[in-house]
Amino acid sequence: MTAATHGPGAVGTRGPVKVIGAGLLGASLGLALRGAGVEVQLADASPQALALARDLGAGDIPDPADTAAPSIVVVATPPDVAAVAVIEALRAHPGAVVTDVASVKAPIEEEVLATSRPAELDVSRYVGSHPMAGRERSGAAAAHADLFAGRPWVIVPHAGSAEDAVLAVRTLAADVGSAPVRMGASEHDDAVALVSHLPQLAATLVATRLVDAPEEALALAGQGLRDVTRIAASDPQLWSTILVGNAAPVAAVLRQLREDLDQLLEPLDRSAEHGPDAPGATGPLAQAVAAGNRGVERIPGKHGGAPRRYSEVTALVPDEPGALARLLAEVGEEGVNLEDLHLEHSAGQRVGLARISVLPAAAGPLEKALERRGWQVVAP
Amino acid sequence: MTAATHGPGAVGTRGPVKVIGAGLLGASLGLALRGAGVEVQLADASPQALALARDLGAGDIPDPADTAAPSIVVVATPPDVAAVAVIEALRAHPGAVVTDVASVKAPIEEEVLATSRPAELDVSRYVGSHPMAGRERSGAAAAHADLFAGRPWVIVPHAGSAEDAVLAVRTLAADVGSAPVRMGASEHDDAVALVSHLPQLAATLVATRLVDAPEEALALAGQGLRDVTRIAASDPQLWSTILVGNAAPVAAVLRQLREDLDQLLEPLDRSAEHGPDAPGATGPLAQAVAAGNRGVERIPGKHGGAPRRYSEVTALVPDEPGALARLLAEVGEEGVNLEDLHLEHSAGQRVGLARISVLPAAAGPLEKALERRGWQVVAP
Repeated sequence: MTAATHGPGAVGTRGPVKVIGAGLLGASLGLALRGAGVEVQLADASPQALALARDLGAGDIPDPADTAAPSIVVVATPPDVAAVAVIEALRAHPGAVVTDVASVKAPIEEEVLATSRPAELDVSRYVGSHPMAGRERSGAAAAHADLFAGRPWVIVPHAGSAEDAVLAVRTLAADVGSAPVRMGASEHDDAVALVSHLPQLAATLVATRLVDAPEEALALAGQGLRDVTRIAASDPQLWSTILVGNAAPVAAVLRQLREDLDQLLEPLDRSAEHGPDAPGATGPLAQAVAAGNRGVERIPGKHGGAPRRYSEVTALVPDEPGALARLLAEVGEEGVNLEDLHLEHSAGQRVGLARISVLPAAAGPLEKALERRGWQVVAP
Repeated sequence: MTAATHGPGAVGTRGPVKVIGAGLLGASLGLALRGAGVEVQLADASPQALALARDLGAGDIPDPADTAAPSIVVVATPPDVAAVAVIEALRAHPGAVVTDVASVKAPIEEEVLATSRPAELDVSRYVGSHPMAGRERSGAAAAHADLFAGRPWVIVPHAGSAEDAVLAVRTLAADVGSAPVRMGASEHDDAVALVSHLPQLAATLVATRLVDAPEEALALAGQGLRDVTRIAASDPQLWSTILVGNAAPVAAVLRQLREDLDQLLEPLDRSAEHGPDAPGATGPLAQAVAAGNRGVERIPGKHGGAPRRYSEVTALVPDEPGALARLLAEVGEEGVNLEDLHLEHSAGQRVGLARISVLPAAAGPLEKALERRGWQVVAP
């Protein structure tokens, strides 16, 4: 069974597409475009990285003397050299639309636009972009044609970008299965500081508190701690580069969080000093938790739909091959679509809890059906 | 199919057990004990709550004139009245072991021990405890016999607790399927501040930053933000009570996090002012992320075993009933045990990503097997 997210028939991009930088993103893009029947030219400062990407099928290494002019150039270099590569590409390929895929946009846009004065550079052909695709591994060896499938790809035109250039980048993004979203550069950088860089730092900060914690304390870790700290396992080198690249927006949102944190310390200190019934302790803490409730409710649901509260049905699952699959097969047999799933394990037990999110109307009937089928449905 | 976590044959608790407080924890405990064949006496200040718990099968409402003396009394009242209830129980039942199940231990222990001087109260029969069981709903109506299954239950003796009293509470905890862990009161309170209350507040603080965020920014939310903020949806009233009850340890660990946060702001500010290549920017940020790596690696794996790195196999799953179940069934058919599972959804696509954690040795063969079976295995 194959999920058909895109096929050659639906492709709008006219090749050749030149991809500069044969790392994870560049090579994955090459694979995806060639899978859709688009000609790909590869370039990389490292001959070895280039050969690897070619051998993996990500594109051709064109002969400079005998190469069709690219219609689009995608700069997929490390972010600190992206602006220079964009400027070079605009000069080298006067007929091409040029985009880059770096995760921070305003500094690159500024550098490109600054170079265009005095004026010999046609920056109307430049449109920045940012595919929000997985980055846990790096290098062409980890490349995959489906890297972009189902991910947002932010299209970031500047004030002088031509609309046909915007459309070309948007079409390319859609052709590799991603969901294009249009945004300004600062707006994009503020957005990723908030929805990507801040959670990364929060996870890092909580996990850092565990470094010197007693082992007995860690033995009490539950699913909450695991969820909050999961992304704290991210690559330090990659993340330090991302953070310095977007330093001002990240520092701003981190300062806002620190202000909220200071406001939490006040009622906690009051309560530590005067006891749990101290006036001005419980109220502010309840209000703080309620504000978090409102924030988390704003995160859009699956498929970009409006946030929707699902109901959870929780069942005990023995820790043996196939047990969870049997449970989910029976959920499917009941005609219920699983909206989300969390597995929860605890110390010392050979069973886990499967927390199944379903539409609220389906929860009651599903609980009954699972119990009828012999599953232990438990309080969440 | 039923997960046999415990059965009447293995029960060590001699009844009757008296449960004071017929809320979620008390009623669930009653259900679990009666399921194991132990006699349960229920008590609650509210006659209605009491009748509800009895009707649900959590225990009997004993006739004061004609009641066997309990061998164990479990105080499952709200935490702010737990110490008073423990003291009353020690007085009323001179032959019984008394425990409570409140989520904070040192203040209750102090209050009980303070009352024992001058001396007429036999506090050697008191052993505090804390079952780390789900608390997302409250009240007897949400009670379930499996609430404690697979969860740690912290046993918190004080210096004067008799060892046979400790053993009785430990046996009770094991009889309802939980995993007993022994700890001192302050040690317990510090531990839950770190592994439970701090992640709750971190999730709340990140989610609070979303309250006024532009909708376009929220549309870029990925799995990282969802994981970090999931528990920010918790009940404000419940959590404000938990936090004031453990205010000093929570404030202490929150201050430590704030110090780490301030250390992150320095290199970010330097980089915002002097650019991404500023000296002293990348290095400290990489070190901070690396410290988080070390912390998250200390969280014990499934079943309390040593932390173990699993490998992830990621496959595309169409959003239709039964698709995930088919995938997991085929994982089971390959003889591979699923260690953990995350579902990832993105805006605008009718497919999801299933990230399957397996033992490292199983990852390569599983990827090949799934591809052979027609699944799209993608880069994580």
